Amino acid sequence: MQEINTIMEQSQAAFRTYSQLPAAVRAQFLETVAAEIEARREQLVTIAGAETNLPAARLNNEINRTNNQLKMFAAYIREGSWVEAAIDTADAARVPAKPDTRKMLLPAGPVVVFGASNFPFAFSTAGGDTASALAAGCTVVVKAHSAHSGTSREVFTAILKAIAACGMPEHTVQHVEIPGHATGKALVAHPLTTGVGFTGSLQGGKALLEYAAGRENPIPVFAEMSSINPVVFYPDTLSQNADTLAKSYAASITLGMGQFCTNPGLLLAIGSEATDNFLRLLADEIEKTIPQKMLHSGIHASYVRTMETVLSQDGTVLLKTAAQPAQELEATPAVARVNAAQFLQNPHLQEEVFGPFSLAVICEDKTALKQVLATLKGQLTTTAMATPADLETHADILALQTTLAGRIILNDVPTGVEVNASMVHGGPFPATTDARFTSVGTTAARRWVRPVCFQGFTDALLPEALRNSNPLGILRIVNNEWTKSPVV
Amino acid sequence: MQEINTIMEQSQAAFRTYSQLPAAVRAQFLETVAAEIEARREQLVTIAGAETNLPAARLNNEINRTNNQLKMFAAYIREGSWVEAAIDTADAARVPAKPDTRKMLLPAGPVVVFGASNFPFAFSTAGGDTASALAAGCTVVVKAHSAHSGTSREVFTAILKAIAACGMPEHTVQHVEIPGHATGKALVAHPLTTGVGFTGSLQGGKALLEYAAGRENPIPVFAEMSSINPVVFYPDTLSQNADTLAKSYAASITLGMGQFCTNPGLLLAIGSEATDNFLRLLADEIEKTIPQKMLHSGIHASYVRTMETVLSQDGTVLLKTAAQPAQELEATPAVARVNAAQFLQNPHLQEEVFGPFSLAVICEDKTALKQVLATLKGQLTTTAMATPADLETHADILALQTTLAGRIILNDVPTGVEVNASMVHGGPFPATTDARFTSVGTTAARRWVRPVCFQGFTDALLPEALRNSNPLGILRIVNNEWTKSPVV
Repeated sequence: MQEINTIMEQSQAAFRTYSQLPAAVRAQFLETVAAEIEARREQLVTIAGAETNLPAARLNNEINRTNNQLKMFAAYIREGSWVEAAIDTADAARVPAKPDTRKMLLPAGPVVVFGASNFPFAFSTAGGDTASALAAGCTVVVKAHSAHSGTSREVFTAILKAIAACGMPEHTVQHVEIPGHATGKALVAHPLTTGVGFTGSLQGGKALLEYAAGRENPIPVFAEMSSINPVVFYPDTLSQNADTLAKSYAASITLGMGQFCTNPGLLLAIGSEATDNFLRLLADEIEKTIPQKMLHSGIHASYVRTMETVLSQDGTVLLKTAAQPAQELEATPAVARVNAAQFLQNPHLQEEVFGPFSLAVICEDKTALKQVLATLKGQLTTTAMATPADLETHADILALQTTLAGRIILNDVPTGVEVNASMVHGGPFPATTDARFTSVGTTAARRWVRPVCFQGFTDALLPEALRNSNPLGILRIVNNEWTKSPVV
Repeated sequence: MQEINTIMEQSQAAFRTYSQLPAAVRAQFLETVAAEIEARREQLVTIAGAETNLPAARLNNEINRTNNQLKMFAAYIREGSWVEAAIDTADAARVPAKPDTRKMLLPAGPVVVFGASNFPFAFSTAGGDTASALAAGCTVVVKAHSAHSGTSREVFTAILKAIAACGMPEHTVQHVEIPGHATGKALVAHPLTTGVGFTGSLQGGKALLEYAAGRENPIPVFAEMSSINPVVFYPDTLSQNADTLAKSYAASITLGMGQFCTNPGLLLAIGSEATDNFLRLLADEIEKTIPQKMLHSGIHASYVRTMETVLSQDGTVLLKTAAQPAQELEATPAVARVNAAQFLQNPHLQEEVFGPFSLAVICEDKTALKQVLATLKGQLTTTAMATPADLETHADILALQTTLAGRIILNDVPTGVEVNASMVHGGPFPATTDARFTSVGTTAARRWVRPVCFQGFTDALLPEALRNSNPLGILRIVNNEWTKSPVV
């Protein structure tokens, strides 16, 4: 594809300049992008509302999050210690003589970002992948999601304004609207692409992995794909808090019509009267929820189809659903149950139903519950709903949960992802393609950099982060000691 | 393979215990492995000498390095800040309420390590991959290299002694000697394997990548494979220091019969009288070197074959060789030259000749030199031999070099790799499979861990690294401030 080739060559040319800019200049640029988005808030909410069926309140919150992310990354690189500067000074007296070696993280090159259908702002054109890559010093090529290309175009206009205002290279960020899988493939396969960010379906993520594996030189693909976010309801809490739990989980399951990566799609409990009571209360709550429109017809059709698949499996029982939809694209929230034995022998029941649906797996005893946990694939989150007495009795269950996911939640719902230094939005496959990274929070920038060691360099030739005087005032490891002091 | 299945299940069972041990206990174990290797030094040098043809002095140095690595990782995890603890405390007043989130790095699971033929100690059974994985809290399955299986077995005996002495789980490290590619494939493909470490050929590394890509759940493969370590001789230094440069580079090219990943296989210069003079001096030095035995017949045959391939390419001229070998397995050091135009159009000339051979690419002008640099694939190292005047005139060349490799060396030879916090032994493909990591130095441990976020946990349920009182006294990011202070 000649057009993609031109775009990637432009990205590479821009990278040569952009990657050399001081972090403070990149920080200013990120903040200007946020300001330009803020200046267009009204239009953006209108366009995105029409394209995604998401309510204005949610879209406004998402714009807040997007702008906060941009500002968070600006603060992160302005502080500067994230480059992991490490310095070992020379020792001429050692035999053989010890050279001076200094290491820091440097941007890898142009990054390709795929817009996500379910987050038109926070995981799309100027979302977390773009913000983290720009913070790291990489240029970005955004493949707009076709379900909200108007929104994407308007956000890109905000970015272009910021590029002009801050004097960034013209092609620091580029916007690709050419539809079709061939475009995505050409972007991932292009020799100048050095990394890929994606949030979407398992099928989509696996396709990108395959394109990357077909390259002459493999590159990192960070795809956040598929998670059913198992929630374990421990016995004691079920007998004490069934009503509260039912209310909070019905709300979490149906929040945003379940269109979140962290939607609780799997509920686990040991069978008991208390468990049956909880399921009854939960089903009643689900029944009361009001169907709302999903993002687009593809997601809606997939919700109906995957839920039908789950419900048609042996032993799966539908508990209750909300009212049937009154309009096109509306989803009917639902909850079903199945026994552990049937769950264990049927991999279909582990497949994500993207939408307001949850499957309760009822285990005859603790052994069965542990078997189910051991069978589960990698997840973004897993949650323990448990009293102190539960946790004392069942430490082994919590330990098993810890091996399963990137985020382990105690007594809360998995929906709602903080954007900060301690967040992990990642997890073992198929939650993501690489459990060593997160796509949310400051360390998301690590996906787009590589460490470089400078050996025997004179001070003036070194990047500022590695110079003796520590002009950036960052925390460094100097001869194995963490310090902000200059090298003397 | 039933046997591999048993081994991986044992590794997983050991991981459950080993991964939970305090870092101080793991540190003590690593130091005990070093002590047990030290106690066997004499036998190890004898066995390895017979198996690898490496001289005793080199083997003794390599044992020193191996033991220093083990002790370095022990110190690294005892200090403890490497787990990247990050804490964001709750804020109930925020709308919506902000939960307490705390993140740290946790070991991923069993790791498979392939012994390297060229480093029977430092990159084999108790080498850098094993030491870094054990430090990280992972259990290890070592696939012994068939070229030095006796050495490997003896090192494994030392590890077993340390396991017993320190009361580690029996299968914390296991040793696989079943020969053949099928064994390696079964180890990489096994569902319980969570990471792979390898140092070897491009062909071998690519095969491991392929096995990993064929898994249901992809896992990280860190393979250090192929690098020709381009050295750029800048014009001014060639006219001033030709004699010294020729001596030091002949020594580096032939060190250990060129059997190092960082061997300078490609020399770049702009054509001139000074360049011709330097090449003449270098060829004379190469001619004087004495052939020595290579590691094994496979490496020797490959050296002869790949050098012949390079020498048979259009425009390649053999400058000089050392004396022809007097004994089987001896390698003849050699140096050749080719013009940039021919190099640019012939990808064969970028292939690694593993052994004491170097190809000088003579460029008609600076433009050609920059074209050659832009054409080169990813490298472990690249070196600039340059005076201050050179660097002032040719900053653009140094900038190009910086994009090429994991380590950029100024006025030294690339052979010799420091093992410390600032080393990068890594680089873009095909130098390694993932430029974001290093296989040498403290941060090599990062390859085997994943971040985990604990949300809403009470203090007693948290890992020590994340508790309010900071009982380990490590550096943490608490509400965006780097501190060793407790959370109040």
